[in-house]
Amino acid sequence: MTQQIPNYGKAFSMLRAGCETKWEAYIAHDFVSELGKGALPQASFLHYMVQDYVYLVHYARAWALGVVKAESIEEMRLCAATVDSLINKEFSLHIQTCAAQGIEEKSLYTASEELETIAYTRYVLDAGLQGDFLDLLLALAPCAFGYGEIGIRLKDQVYSGHPYEKWINTYAGEDFQNVCISVGNLLDMAIASRVGDAPHESPRWQKMQARFTKAAELEANFWSMGLRAGKQ
Amino acid sequence: MTQQIPNYGKAFSMLRAGCETKWEAYIAHDFVSELGKGALPQASFLHYMVQDYVYLVHYARAWALGVVKAESIEEMRLCAATVDSLINKEFSLHIQTCAAQGIEEKSLYTASEELETIAYTRYVLDAGLQGDFLDLLLALAPCAFGYGEIGIRLKDQVYSGHPYEKWINTYAGEDFQNVCISVGNLLDMAIASRVGDAPHESPRWQKMQARFTKAAELEANFWSMGLRAGKQ
Amino acid sequence: MTQQIPNYGKAFSMLRAGCETKWEAYIAHDFVSELGKGALPQASFLHYMVQDYVYLVHYARAWALGVVKAESIEEMRLCAATVDSLINKEFSLHIQTCAAQGIEEKSLYTASEELETIAYTRYVLDAGLQGDFLDLLLALAPCAFGYGEIGIRLKDQVYSGHPYEKWINTYAGEDFQNVCISVGNLLDMAIASRVGDAPHESPRWQKMQARFTKAAELEANFWSMGLRAGKQ
Amino acid sequence: MTQQIPNYGKAFSMLRAGCETKWEAYIAHDFVSELGKGALPQASFLHYMVQDYVYLVHYARAWALGVVKAESIEEMRLCAATVDSLINKEFSLHIQTCAAQGIEEKSLYTASEELETIAYTRYVLDAGLQGDFLDLLLALAPCAFGYGEIGIRLKDQVYSGHPYEKWINTYAGEDFQNVCISVGNLLDMAIASRVGDAPHESPRWQKMQARFTKAAELEANFWSMGLRAGKQ
Repeated sequence: MTQQIPNYGKAFSMLRAGCETKWEAYIAHDFVSELGKGALPQASFLHYMVQDYVYLVHYARAWALGVVKAESIEEMRLCAATVDSLINKEFSLHIQTCAAQGIEEKSLYTASEELETIAYTRYVLDAGLQGDFLDLLLALAPCAFGYGEIGIRLKDQVYSGHPYEKWINTYAGEDFQNVCISVGNLLDMAIASRVGDAPHESPRWQKMQARFTKAAELEANFWSMGLRAGKQ
Repeated sequence: MTQQIPNYGKAFSMLRAGCETKWEAYIAHDFVSELGKGALPQASFLHYMVQDYVYLVHYARAWALGVVKAESIEEMRLCAATVDSLINKEFSLHIQTCAAQGIEEKSLYTASEELETIAYTRYVLDAGLQGDFLDLLLALAPCAFGYGEIGIRLKDQVYSGHPYEKWINTYAGEDFQNVCISVGNLLDMAIASRVGDAPHESPRWQKMQARFTKAAELEANFWSMGLRAGKQ
Repeated sequence: MTQQIPNYGKAFSMLRAGCETKWEAYIAHDFVSELGKGALPQASFLHYMVQDYVYLVHYARAWALGVVKAESIEEMRLCAATVDSLINKEFSLHIQTCAAQGIEEKSLYTASEELETIAYTRYVLDAGLQGDFLDLLLALAPCAFGYGEIGIRLKDQVYSGHPYEKWINTYAGEDFQNVCISVGNLLDMAIASRVGDAPHESPRWQKMQARFTKAAELEANFWSMGLRAGKQ
Repeated sequence: MTQQIPNYGKAFSMLRAGCETKWEAYIAHDFVSELGKGALPQASFLHYMVQDYVYLVHYARAWALGVVKAESIEEMRLCAATVDSLINKEFSLHIQTCAAQGIEEKSLYTASEELETIAYTRYVLDAGLQGDFLDLLLALAPCAFGYGEIGIRLKDQVYSGHPYEKWINTYAGEDFQNVCISVGNLLDMAIASRVGDAPHESPRWQKMQARFTKAAELEANFWSMGLRAGKQ
């Protein structure tokens, strides 16, 4: 069965194609396929959810750094809207899921971070400290694009009483798919205004691809951490 | 006539008292008293509004830097809410006022910055780069507190057909006063969790006061820039 | 046999005591004891050296961030001197050791980073982005102090023809011990001027300790990465 | 008499030509020509030297930010060498000149900053926070290039007993001219590796020029501040 690649814009297509094996290792990771089948151990899922809350705290910080680094009013507005949506919407999924298991938000915020969480989140933040708005965005985008693509891939597997229905529907849903389209559009604009119409011909392209690829790798590591937790 | 000092929290009282002469030079500046009387030349006001739009762009960047630097979920939420309110509410006042004079938002964003605008905005951002969340907040707060206090001082001077009625009502109004109270509360919490209950006894106090005082001075310079424009 | 704790200043004693188990897990890690005995597989050592070169690149970036964040001329000078000594001295040990194994500096700089390297280095840099000079220094210090203490512990085990003699002598040597004393002194001064004479009574203390402890943990993970490489 | 433009590299020529009027307003400012003739009031010069010391503190911070933002080992090394040379060489000229007038270094570091000093220094630092290594470098370069060009222009005016001989010789001298050549080379390399061989055809060019031009303008304002001090 061939999977269709979602249309999140020009840059997404190019960057995804530029790291296809690593991209597949991310979006078709065992954690993801087990989650899709409803076979993922609950301990794995819960451990992942706690670490993903911590991840989201830093991910929101990194999008806020995007507001600091933006160079147009549109870039500012889109980053600020994302910060708002992360803190006021996406956090809720995690808080509710964890609350249902007796874990309070306060303890989520102060949860001990796994190595994979530290590595990924601080790598993204440092992309913003070291580079410009585009460098930061290239490290931020794989999380959005990958979850969007995973949502689409898994949505047909949802059956009545599927243990991870809510998670899948969140990322397969229209709201999140629109976020992916917005991020894709923001990335295309950011490239057009800084690098131009033929970005792969720019001397900058290799480093652009490297940042995107590294973030995809760190996503795959994050899933592995979830699986490991289920086996402990 | 004695003016009442608004109740924006413990730290505001202490810091304001620690630079009273400079604080008065800011909130009772000629620009402000002329604006209150409705006697401020329109050229001054308009020039100020354009520069204040540019200021707000960087002020929003600095509050977003607050999200990056926050060390509790409450600090994150309050900063993110402020970024959102700046971009989605306070910008509007400027955009509308300027639009009524034929100035489009695009040209506001790219307006040539006066020296006073550069100095103030970049000073605040550097407070965040150099220091911690509290250092940043101390440089951000005088703008909120001062405009809140000015709003209260001027609101009784508004007469029917006052040219700057909308401006005064914005800052005297409940929404903005609540912003001042929130910022005051955030500052009190930030100090309690980092410096403790007797901040003026901390070796850090002098530098804390210095940041607050410098931002108040840069506000006064900003008004002077507005007045100068009216005379050109 | 009791080990003597080196005298790197007041703060070092307090912070070390505040995380003793984790500190021991770092400085008495199997990687370290095997290295001391001369029994560490060369593959482990070489893999570690390559990753440690990458680490040093970011460690130098973090000390440079210290120059950006310094709040006195002494803090600036000490950080700038450390950046210089890292780039012009400590890099050389790595470059020479690796060159002897046929690895060029160019390939060191672009070596693929292990998860442990990313996690540790970016954690330190983010301590500087999120916090103030002191927060950054607390994340920077465990590397210096720990290597200094390890150097002292291992120096008596050096025998003629010991495969890691040069490494041990570097960190046991007077130059590096003086670096540790300088860093300890800088940390004591940074605390005195920001937190005061009884830092453990400050509301900030817990977070100060947490940063130091986390960096020590990330050091232990770094050794584990080296050992793992030797087994692959 | 036609002045020869110094050869500080390809990018310098292009960027200088792209803001020629403003560049002349900077390097041929009245402050500079009076200084060259030996006619500049000593009060102006001394006020300038104190503010320039404060400037250099932040300029060194900005070069250190360059180490944080560098993306090659050469970029790191050149920035670190510049930080070192600023702190250990260029500071000395200011410290000695001021000491001869009874002003101690401690009071230089804590001197009250003029608006022009705040605006320029924090603008440069924010170029680094907002953009990438190249954006920062474009804001840093005009200070080096301009002083180098001024040094060359003024050196023939030095007569025996000229009051500003030491200042002129510092910037006309080989050491400083080599700094200008290094910075020019660094800029050319930074552009080649990020933007390519035809930078003026890149969509990024306009913003690159704007950063360079703004820094040149802020230099001219800095001279005006010095002149103003002499008249007070």
